[in-house]
Amino acid sequence: LSVIDVHTHIVPENFPAAPSPSCAPRWPTMVHKPEKKASVMIGGKEFRLVDHRCWECTRRVADMDEGEIAMQVLSPMPELLSYWLTAEDARAMAKHINGTIAELIAASPARFAGLGMVPMQDPELAAKDLAAIRHEYGFRGIEIGSNINGKVPGDPIFDPFWAEAERLGLAVFVHALHPVATDRMVGPAVLPTFIGFPIDTGLAAASIITSGLLTRFPNLRIAFSHGGGILASILPRLANGWRITPSLGQAFADPYATARRFYYDNLVFDQATVRHLMGLFGASQIFVGSDYPFAAGEPHPTRFTRELGLDAADWDAMRSGNAERFLGLVR
Amino acid sequence: LSVIDVHTHIVPENFPAAPSPSCAPRWPTMVHKPEKKASVMIGGKEFRLVDHRCWECTRRVADMDEGEIAMQVLSPMPELLSYWLTAEDARAMAKHINGTIAELIAASPARFAGLGMVPMQDPELAAKDLAAIRHEYGFRGIEIGSNINGKVPGDPIFDPFWAEAERLGLAVFVHALHPVATDRMVGPAVLPTFIGFPIDTGLAAASIITSGLLTRFPNLRIAFSHGGGILASILPRLANGWRITPSLGQAFADPYATARRFYYDNLVFDQATVRHLMGLFGASQIFVGSDYPFAAGEPHPTRFTRELGLDAADWDAMRSGNAERFLGLVR
Repeated sequence: LSVIDVHTHIVPENFPAAPSPSCAPRWPTMVHKPEKKASVMIGGKEFRLVDHRCWECTRRVADMDEGEIAMQVLSPMPELLSYWLTAEDARAMAKHINGTIAELIAASPARFAGLGMVPMQDPELAAKDLAAIRHEYGFRGIEIGSNINGKVPGDPIFDPFWAEAERLGLAVFVHALHPVATDRMVGPAVLPTFIGFPIDTGLAAASIITSGLLTRFPNLRIAFSHGGGILASILPRLANGWRITPSLGQAFADPYATARRFYYDNLVFDQATVRHLMGLFGASQIFVGSDYPFAAGEPHPTRFTRELGLDAADWDAMRSGNAERFLGLVR
Repeated sequence: LSVIDVHTHIVPENFPAAPSPSCAPRWPTMVHKPEKKASVMIGGKEFRLVDHRCWECTRRVADMDEGEIAMQVLSPMPELLSYWLTAEDARAMAKHINGTIAELIAASPARFAGLGMVPMQDPELAAKDLAAIRHEYGFRGIEIGSNINGKVPGDPIFDPFWAEAERLGLAVFVHALHPVATDRMVGPAVLPTFIGFPIDTGLAAASIITSGLLTRFPNLRIAFSHGGGILASILPRLANGWRITPSLGQAFADPYATARRFYYDNLVFDQATVRHLMGLFGASQIFVGSDYPFAAGEPHPTRFTRELGLDAADWDAMRSGNAERFLGLVR
């Protein structure tokens, strides 16, 4: 067992009561069903049918043993990030979710690490709550959405959050959430998951490049879900624009150089694409991610990664070394 | 001279008077300047500073000779597509632009081919005007925007247009235009050109995949600017979603199979990306494009393509064979 799967999610077995009447329409509840399944209900509708893999330590560890996964990094199912609630209500959710992640880690500390959540809709409060992420929960970092109620993470309003994440040495995993441009997708209602997620993730990454965030906070460790989404398709054109357009050259650093400081998971469902990302972003920046236990994920992340046929150094980097650097697990 | 550059633009030397008072605020005018430069003015502001390469046959041909370009395919500067005017006003613009392209071709018929424009904001009228594109102007096809006032080309409202394009055997070149999600870009005002163009182009391509357009009209020949933009980053995830989600499998055909029926230019500013697109979309589907004469283009398309180091068959395909198939220049 040698693989660290950085992109896995949890859902708690139950939710507390809604902390305020105003948030009740968007506060999740759990309806348990036979065979350890459960419906996450939001606003009277099933948001997602999940099962005990979302919250049960023994089942997760058994799956990890079978899938040759040494460690899963646990982060909230993104819909639980609760940016659309008041910051105080989101804080109540964060307390419950961070507690759930902490319990899973406590049950099997050698096999799990945690990425918690904070109320990003209030950047000052989010910054304040990061200390507990580090010192109370002992997590390696946090997960944030690719947008926070439509604001990209590179927006300067989030600088207080980024400053504190850097100061505390917390890793930040940016995950697709409520994607943009859904009115440009023609077809079944699930399309935003497949078309919109990569767009939103790539826009988040581009915003961090063009806002010069890593110039202001050079020690941040930031990773992007789904291989950075569309960043790979944008980067060469953006870098060319940066080279030929004085206003861009003055506003931010070489996009290639910044992109090569980010981390990315390899959850892109195509080996040629992973190899392309290794060339574009660097073999030192890509780690394993599966979206476990959700259906839209990679069911065999170790096999998928092994079948890339990497040489020993690149295999070691992708299977665990890059994740360890991102998570701050190396000395 | 053996290269066909499919992605080049024209701007006429002058514009006629606005055909209606209502369109005047968005109708372009030309202010000529020293050294054969000119400002395209829209709404009292300079939209773009251009020069005589936009309209002058002899200068274009001299540049083509120097750049080892056998043929340029001429299409409107996308801002001239005029979808935001009334269909009748856009028709007046189309008449002027199509006439300008036809004059350039007439001046050097061995060196130019044309992609005209029709008023896509009225799909029935656009369909009706395609006959003149083919028979009056003798063009190989038309250029359309990646969105038409926010509607993607895969939207079924455009079926009358696509049906007629197929019937007439006209090639359709989809070019980025007024991109989506500009509020998610942090930085100088030019960023949408570099970040938004690939997004909009990829969304257009995805919409054609997910609407099943090529199932309804299997003989269409459709190409996308800028290497299809973000389609390369979306396709593997969309194809995986299609494979595991019954509603998607029922709604449209294998996304890979459809993507491999589209054509793409190689205007992506990165050789590794071109090679990646060749693997993803097929070496038979990618041709040369430069954005001549605009600043955000590839100044040396022949050299860029030659330096890919393709074998003889792939070089022949990319330099001209794929373009000839797209344009219907082969028997």
